[in-house]
Amino acid sequence: MGGDHAPGAVVAGAADAVRESGGRLTVALVGQQERIERELKALGIPGSGMTVVHAAEVIEMHDAPTAALKAKKGSSISIGLGMHREGRAQGFVSAGNTGAVLSASTLILGRLEGVGRPTIGALVPTAGSPAFLVDAGANVDCRPRHLFEFGVMGSIYVTTMLAIPSPRVGLLSIGEEETKGNEVTLEAHALLKSSTLNFIGNVEGRDILKGTADVVVCDGFVGNIVLKFGESVPAFLKARFTSYAAGNLSRKVVGLIARSGLRTVMKELDYQEYGGVPVLGVRGVSIIGHGGSSPKAIKNMILRAEEMIHRQVNGKIQEALKA
Amino acid sequence: MGGDHAPGAVVAGAADAVRESGGRLTVALVGQQERIERELKALGIPGSGMTVVHAAEVIEMHDAPTAALKAKKGSSISIGLGMHREGRAQGFVSAGNTGAVLSASTLILGRLEGVGRPTIGALVPTAGSPAFLVDAGANVDCRPRHLFEFGVMGSIYVTTMLAIPSPRVGLLSIGEEETKGNEVTLEAHALLKSSTLNFIGNVEGRDILKGTADVVVCDGFVGNIVLKFGESVPAFLKARFTSYAAGNLSRKVVGLIARSGLRTVMKELDYQEYGGVPVLGVRGVSIIGHGGSSPKAIKNMILRAEEMIHRQVNGKIQEALKA
Repeated sequence: MGGDHAPGAVVAGAADAVRESGGRLTVALVGQQERIERELKALGIPGSGMTVVHAAEVIEMHDAPTAALKAKKGSSISIGLGMHREGRAQGFVSAGNTGAVLSASTLILGRLEGVGRPTIGALVPTAGSPAFLVDAGANVDCRPRHLFEFGVMGSIYVTTMLAIPSPRVGLLSIGEEETKGNEVTLEAHALLKSSTLNFIGNVEGRDILKGTADVVVCDGFVGNIVLKFGESVPAFLKARFTSYAAGNLSRKVVGLIARSGLRTVMKELDYQEYGGVPVLGVRGVSIIGHGGSSPKAIKNMILRAEEMIHRQVNGKIQEALKA
Repeated sequence: MGGDHAPGAVVAGAADAVRESGGRLTVALVGQQERIERELKALGIPGSGMTVVHAAEVIEMHDAPTAALKAKKGSSISIGLGMHREGRAQGFVSAGNTGAVLSASTLILGRLEGVGRPTIGALVPTAGSPAFLVDAGANVDCRPRHLFEFGVMGSIYVTTMLAIPSPRVGLLSIGEEETKGNEVTLEAHALLKSSTLNFIGNVEGRDILKGTADVVVCDGFVGNIVLKFGESVPAFLKARFTSYAAGNLSRKVVGLIARSGLRTVMKELDYQEYGGVPVLGVRGVSIIGHGGSSPKAIKNMILRAEEMIHRQVNGKIQEALKA
């Protein structure tokens, strides 16, 4: 039931994932049964490989996460994650209310041994291969140990899922020197430095897009602001190109071509390819998608979840962090 | 002596400012006398309206601010700000080590009554008129009261210097609702809300470039990261356009035109026009320029300083913040 285009986009994406897996995957569609079945019918999708599990309640995108989870015990988020905990599903995927999926993942699945704060990480485009920014918005007030954990979990995720053997881990701060930073990052720097990670020290705001680090560690307050700032750049430039093109004919031509170039380049950076952000540090596999997730994004999230299960990301995290 | 192109660019910019003021301004060039005089000669600039004040020592861009100020008491920064404190100059401008100018401004000039933390603010381009982001990197660990002060000082600066009568003040956070944020911003929100400012509530990372707020309040850790991230966007896009243009001929044409369009649009956002970032909250006028400041940037910083003096920004800040 999650996301702006639910349940249509979710049902279609799930069907695509089942099809692409060649029967290897089965997907349980959790939500309001009648609406889901209507979608299945409308899309002409046969039920094969898909089951429908009824959930009477829906946590809306604008609901306050903790309150909504309490008030709506029969939500698709709670029921789906409950199935995962009970072993009736090996992973969970949602394009719903980010805060609610995140809280419910921690509450229902529990934390892995040694993890103080489960987190979410997001892939961001760089001049090279994408960087994994962690925390992407889950934990706003962090202690140094939490940032250290984000570095460990991020590094394992990138190694395991993106096949980068020894990812460069950078701590997002305000100067390269280890004496630069705020109270929390200064201490986190020391923890990361004395770890077995490939820690390259502090990285600055300008280093993210350069691709200086494969894993960029920050608290969720900074991570959320940087990600949202970055997301707003294309619209800003588009507006600039448009106002530039309002001049004479040659400006019009340059402006229009520049806009089209921008559109193409941005398409290459499409979030849909990345297939959602993983919740790391919980006893299970839970992936949160963009509210605007298309069928393609949903499909990729499901396939990504399957990969996380097979590659045992969680086993590696627990191994690294347990005392 | 400050900046990557010192003293040449500084001397040339100062001469331009004196010339543009039509004799209204006099500039004291503080630094190594011999080198400055050599520049004056090389540039063919007559001494009129400019004096040279010898300062034997130079704080380099990479020096640690506090240590450098202690070790180099005869630096151009200390001597120049000393002249300002003693009334032998009405304002101070430097393209040198940002941390050193900032510390020295607070130490030598002192804080205005009611100001806990002097700050620096930077103008950033938006879809509309530029927004003033404050703190731009001076104070990394802030208390709620400090963020409140940044809002007050930023609002006064924008009203007085940019002629926006009732600037919209936004608190940079991770959601529009006042319940969203970290511990510090949640408390700062309450302080700003109960003030007489035109406080529009929280703004998100995506709102900065949209121009939702005229004044964007944040701590210097977040401010520095956002500003540096933003500065890195043009180079990132340029690289993307270039790799796009490496394809067939039509891609080449689109890529090159898009790059040129980008260059033009970015020129409009040139930091040199803005003329440096003001130190707010000190008993004096002190403006810090980009390390790469050109003569034009230096000239605009000097003219900006003169404006700040005439429009009595400090008097207004003290009026608003004193108990």
